[in-house]
Amino acid sequence: MIDVQNQKDYRNLAIDKVGVKDIRYPITVKDKVKKKQRTVASINMYVNLPKSYKGTHMSRFVEILSEYRHQISIENLPHILEEMKKRLKAASAHMEVSFPYFIEKEAPVSKTSGLMEYFCTFKGTLNHGMDLIVGLKIPINTLCPCSKEISKHGAHNQRGQVSLELRFQRFIWIEDIIKLVEECASSEVYSILKRADEKFVTERAYENPMFVEDVVREVALRLDGDENITWFTVETENFESIHNHSAYAFIERRKS
Amino acid sequence: MIDVQNQKDYRNLAIDKVGVKDIRYPITVKDKVKKKQRTVASINMYVNLPKSYKGTHMSRFVEILSEYRHQISIENLPHILEEMKKRLKAASAHMEVSFPYFIEKEAPVSKTSGLMEYFCTFKGTLNHGMDLIVGLKIPINTLCPCSKEISKHGAHNQRGQVSLELRFQRFIWIEDIIKLVEECASSEVYSILKRADEKFVTERAYENPMFVEDVVREVALRLDGDENITWFTVETENFESIHNHSAYAFIERRKS
Amino acid sequence: MIDVQNQKDYRNLAIDKVGVKDIRYPITVKDKVKKKQRTVASINMYVNLPKSYKGTHMSRFVEILSEYRHQISIENLPHILEEMKKRLKAASAHMEVSFPYFIEKEAPVSKTSGLMEYFCTFKGTLNHGMDLIVGLKIPINTLCPCSKEISKHGAHNQRGQVSLELRFQRFIWIEDIIKLVEECASSEVYSILKRADEKFVTERAYENPMFVEDVVREVALRLDGDENITWFTVETENFESIHNHSAYAFIERRKS
Amino acid sequence: MIDVQNQKDYRNLAIDKVGVKDIRYPITVKDKVKKKQRTVASINMYVNLPKSYKGTHMSRFVEILSEYRHQISIENLPHILEEMKKRLKAASAHMEVSFPYFIEKEAPVSKTSGLMEYFCTFKGTLNHGMDLIVGLKIPINTLCPCSKEISKHGAHNQRGQVSLELRFQRFIWIEDIIKLVEECASSEVYSILKRADEKFVTERAYENPMFVEDVVREVALRLDGDENITWFTVETENFESIHNHSAYAFIERRKS
Repeated sequence: MIDVQNQKDYRNLAIDKVGVKDIRYPITVKDKVKKKQRTVASINMYVNLPKSYKGTHMSRFVEILSEYRHQISIENLPHILEEMKKRLKAASAHMEVSFPYFIEKEAPVSKTSGLMEYFCTFKGTLNHGMDLIVGLKIPINTLCPCSKEISKHGAHNQRGQVSLELRFQRFIWIEDIIKLVEECASSEVYSILKRADEKFVTERAYENPMFVEDVVREVALRLDGDENITWFTVETENFESIHNHSAYAFIERRKS
Repeated sequence: MIDVQNQKDYRNLAIDKVGVKDIRYPITVKDKVKKKQRTVASINMYVNLPKSYKGTHMSRFVEILSEYRHQISIENLPHILEEMKKRLKAASAHMEVSFPYFIEKEAPVSKTSGLMEYFCTFKGTLNHGMDLIVGLKIPINTLCPCSKEISKHGAHNQRGQVSLELRFQRFIWIEDIIKLVEECASSEVYSILKRADEKFVTERAYENPMFVEDVVREVALRLDGDENITWFTVETENFESIHNHSAYAFIERRKS
Repeated sequence: MIDVQNQKDYRNLAIDKVGVKDIRYPITVKDKVKKKQRTVASINMYVNLPKSYKGTHMSRFVEILSEYRHQISIENLPHILEEMKKRLKAASAHMEVSFPYFIEKEAPVSKTSGLMEYFCTFKGTLNHGMDLIVGLKIPINTLCPCSKEISKHGAHNQRGQVSLELRFQRFIWIEDIIKLVEECASSEVYSILKRADEKFVTERAYENPMFVEDVVREVALRLDGDENITWFTVETENFESIHNHSAYAFIERRKS
Repeated sequence: MIDVQNQKDYRNLAIDKVGVKDIRYPITVKDKVKKKQRTVASINMYVNLPKSYKGTHMSRFVEILSEYRHQISIENLPHILEEMKKRLKAASAHMEVSFPYFIEKEAPVSKTSGLMEYFCTFKGTLNHGMDLIVGLKIPINTLCPCSKEISKHGAHNQRGQVSLELRFQRFIWIEDIIKLVEECASSEVYSILKRADEKFVTERAYENPMFVEDVVREVALRLDGDENITWFTVETENFESIHNHSAYAFIERRKS
């Protein structure tokens, strides 16, 4: 049977990335407490294509994914990328793995335990060197300092979301980054709160007002102070309770 | 050219609905203040298919849509449905038109004006009789009565959304339903608020705490009292500021 | 601490459904081949609220979910609903659990194996009686009979999706419903296809042209013939390759 | 009333972008044929915030948007960005405007006319200099060359989408970019096709097989040859009809 993909291409134009996108797959990732966590990921896998070839071999991406699906971790991404380069005879390889990650979390007073969902992404690019990025989306509560200051009583607050991306030198646990970020909000959010917890969370938020500007700054300060982090972006989005749109702030920092 | 759709089908099975789905089209709808408003809709159009025919003629739906796109209104839906029945030789016709609808709205103190987006749906079914439904999604602010009661100061609040569907006897303006619903929240939301407005909105919400349960009940009471409304559903969803999930309440009422 | 939810409500208006919506949780479901499958679900849990009470107790829903999360199955839904009724002192309880479900599937010629994702929903309502519904979304390939008939060569085809909901008398496996539906398409779809498989799938689709109308009818005929199924809806949506919208067909059948 | 945003911040940390996100607004854009087109946009507006200030003034963004909403065009973006810089006393300003754009398009044989939706984005950044980007998403049909070559008859095809972003020297019409891209597919797609058109489109696609790799290369070649374009990215995504995931290819090119 003819291998059309393998035919020569005469347009003299290399392709930066070609592969499979939005393939959903059950994966197993590392968990700081339970060693392993099973979840479901959306995955993109690409390689470069030299100018002389007409097409890539799409089925090989899914074969590699199937083989490695129980060993998805930021530590293991380099091996998968090497495998992609080898099996697809490519000079560069890219992989993005996005998945919900769950952490057991106790309510602050009653200590009732429930699972909180965080959204995590691993991105890897293998070229001459290896480039790895960890991304996280972390729900938070923010209470408006202006609204508190100018109002007789109360203050508008809302759910917000901190999204960050990190480059780093040594392995980092998702759990540690989440903790760092949750300390920078008016309050953390929880899946279960009993009445004593709700009182605690309400008062903590009121006593700790934060603009989107404050949240990105606080997160950026902590990441700046961690010499293991070599680059980061952090953004905060508030799903404003008094508007039908979001307030947003963003900081990027490259540490040399 | 053979008309495959028109061929006889031998499976002896009528189809309830067949047609086009998720077609996006610019439309013009009635506006209480400005007479007309241009917006962009997602549209579904279906007819029934008798058991003796193999297929329907999909292009006719889009032809009808093109002809009527400047006259989309709940009053005009019956004519479009009649046209669908006639042109597609069907016994029943269904159409769903969903679109963002904008209303000029002044901030409560500064009177600064901005546009607020509401999401609107018209649904029509023509069978033996005509059945018309208006649907609306209205963003609101809700402040938790429990949180206010048990906390030293402050109270968690968040953006919420009221979704309702109505059957009615005489024409109703979208603008009037929106006003009715916005009066049932802890506070309305706005696209522009200056500082004096933010103070007003914050205090109004704090003085007017509402559970999701309170909001659906208040909306349901008002709709119940309007004899023009013959049937309704109302649901409230709070995008909780202390959780990563929603609180939800729902009431359906058929008035005989 | 005051229990505001437990206070008396004077509006004389019962609420049909109140609870938590869109909570994401890792769950374990039954798997025909591997006994158990871990996945991640979106979950809604509601109870009714009598007219005399001001509010429900939202944290109890999440507590129940936490306890049962390793035993989510259509067989087990009645026990969870009973527990909800009891713990929330309600007359009715509702639960909806939606999750991706993965099945190992071999390519038709090369027998290369990969995981296919299907989207599954369990819905349960406990009132006077118990009402259970299984829902599934199954991707398929459809090739247009009209395009094949009128064209010199080739025929437009596309990805489609069959969505169905079933009520039944005795336990049914998701795997069996999926198989039934996949036999009603121009061709099944796969996560991995080698070249010999691609040839097979292309030719099978060309030799087996199906409108959306044909697919819903074929699925409906098979479900009609299964006396275990007491009610069903089936819809097919084609993401048309020659349009930017979908073709759609729908059949509902209640068997007495 | 205290201006909390205007207070001094002591964290010594400037913010790259702060403002409003996902605000939906009706806008009027330039149309090559009809002069003007009304549509509905999702809009982000940000400025930088120097390290000495605690917060920005969010309401000013929406005020500016309200004033300019009937004059949104890539030519006009620089004036809006200047206004943002001035009114918010900022050193840099960013704006992103995304909207559906409709073009009247005739079927290839019957000449029946219908509206096609394309998704358009304008992005502008004003810093020391002005940076403008036009983005477009264009639905296409692609027919697989490998499937055609190895199969007895037929070939799998599907809806695809070309997404591109452009920097340029002189004003460009959206309509011209769309035409350029549609010529690079196996076939264009349409909102209305009569039978004679369907035959034409089916045969054109079969005679013109294209991988995702071919489509990005063809588009890139044409953009490369246009000296008005100074930089571009082009990606093609095929919603594969034989898989439940996409095939994807991407090229970026900076012309010096």
